[in-house]
Amino acid sequence: MQSLTDYSRLSLNQITTNRWSVPEAIEGCARAKVPAIAFWRHKIAEAGLEVTRRLARDAGLHVSSICRGGMFPAATREERAKRIADNLQAIDEAAQLEADTLVLVCGAAPDRDLRGARRMVEDGIAELVPYARERHVKLGIEPLHPMLAAERSCITSLEEANNLAAKFDPQTVGVVVDVYHVWWDAMLSREIARARGRIEGFHVSDWLTPPPDILLGRGMMGDGCIDIRYIRQLVEAAGFEGFIEVEIFNQAIWDRPGDEVLQLMKERYLDCV
Amino acid sequence: MQSLTDYSRLSLNQITTNRWSVPEAIEGCARAKVPAIAFWRHKIAEAGLEVTRRLARDAGLHVSSICRGGMFPAATREERAKRIADNLQAIDEAAQLEADTLVLVCGAAPDRDLRGARRMVEDGIAELVPYARERHVKLGIEPLHPMLAAERSCITSLEEANNLAAKFDPQTVGVVVDVYHVWWDAMLSREIARARGRIEGFHVSDWLTPPPDILLGRGMMGDGCIDIRYIRQLVEAAGFEGFIEVEIFNQAIWDRPGDEVLQLMKERYLDCV
Repeated sequence: MQSLTDYSRLSLNQITTNRWSVPEAIEGCARAKVPAIAFWRHKIAEAGLEVTRRLARDAGLHVSSICRGGMFPAATREERAKRIADNLQAIDEAAQLEADTLVLVCGAAPDRDLRGARRMVEDGIAELVPYARERHVKLGIEPLHPMLAAERSCITSLEEANNLAAKFDPQTVGVVVDVYHVWWDAMLSREIARARGRIEGFHVSDWLTPPPDILLGRGMMGDGCIDIRYIRQLVEAAGFEGFIEVEIFNQAIWDRPGDEVLQLMKERYLDCV
Repeated sequence: MQSLTDYSRLSLNQITTNRWSVPEAIEGCARAKVPAIAFWRHKIAEAGLEVTRRLARDAGLHVSSICRGGMFPAATREERAKRIADNLQAIDEAAQLEADTLVLVCGAAPDRDLRGARRMVEDGIAELVPYARERHVKLGIEPLHPMLAAERSCITSLEEANNLAAKFDPQTVGVVVDVYHVWWDAMLSREIARARGRIEGFHVSDWLTPPPDILLGRGMMGDGCIDIRYIRQLVEAAGFEGFIEVEIFNQAIWDRPGDEVLQLMKERYLDCV
């Protein structure tokens, strides 16, 4: 498996430089010649959608994804409806920014009923599909690591995400493969092959041992134990040619100057991805 | 699904009262009328195997399992051979104590090569099988939670454990279902059904939100979000009638007096399991 030789497919997921605002992240990518970016919605809200759109366009930056929609399960019908409304707004934002994908972090069960929560996720996605299709926005179901099942996502494996995506039109609903969330899975090669035509995003970071934190413990590529290149080979063998997002939740990385983080990220991208 | 109405299937996994020695744990079970116990090997080593055997027999305690064998992957052939030798000794201990199962915590990759580590696990189990069969010891492959993949076990889902067990004689090799390790899995009911005739252990505890710690963050049944009774129903529908082990790694519980922990465990066993 060959290393990547240029940065044409590299995307900065904005959370990796969490201290940067939207304008700062866009300027940082321009300085580092990173050609794409993924925005978080709370950052878009701070900067304003139209400002975000204009700055990204003026910088010639491609938008690989918007993070995030989802969070479908909730205890009451009212709350679930509120979340659908928020997802419709996220679709509008993704359409405005011409993002490749709206990433769906599907949400956790509000109680012990995981199966019920999974039905709420399926129902929620079903409500979004016509709206997303009209606006040519792809929805990417991202299975999260099982250790986040109680707090963030009841969708915990790529098999489950594939099964869920298969219920919908592949023109609108696919999956997102994040190495941090799926690297442990013995069925990974089978499930990535099965996701052919549905892979709407590929995210990289690393698993640190021992993890310094459950939420903020992701590492820079090369600092952990994930065979990232092997997983890239699997997604490419399954037809994925899109941007590769670097998405790192890690307080120590957040505390470093953004420009330094981007330089390190670029080195590790060629060395380890 | 009905609650359990008596303690005839309850077993104390000794780690739940980690401050207790083997004699203390046996006395504690006798006082609390808990009919079975699972021993850890480092505790057996402290007390002596023959003392452990005699005290358990005199107290009329059944031994539901010995924890643990496994830890097969290692960087060198010498180290792997050393671990096999240790596993053979564990089989002898399980035979001496007439334990239902020797629990296998299979071990993590010594490097980034997860697939290589999984082959080492399979090869390791293959080396144990004839020795275990002669001594009538069952080997129970326990898939661990994926967040422990880098440190404890490259076997991270029940599907994977089932696939692995299926390569061996069901009279000797089966799986152990621990709710803490598998509760997040959307394929759980399918895989428990598939494990019929191979379920050699059932362990209970709970998932706390947020987890206070990756290794020592398990909760007492009822304190977390796992639908334990649902999972008990699944294993019983798959034919499991064995002991139900309470296995809790949690510093706050370890710091409480053991007798108190056993009383609480008994209450929650009827209420939540």
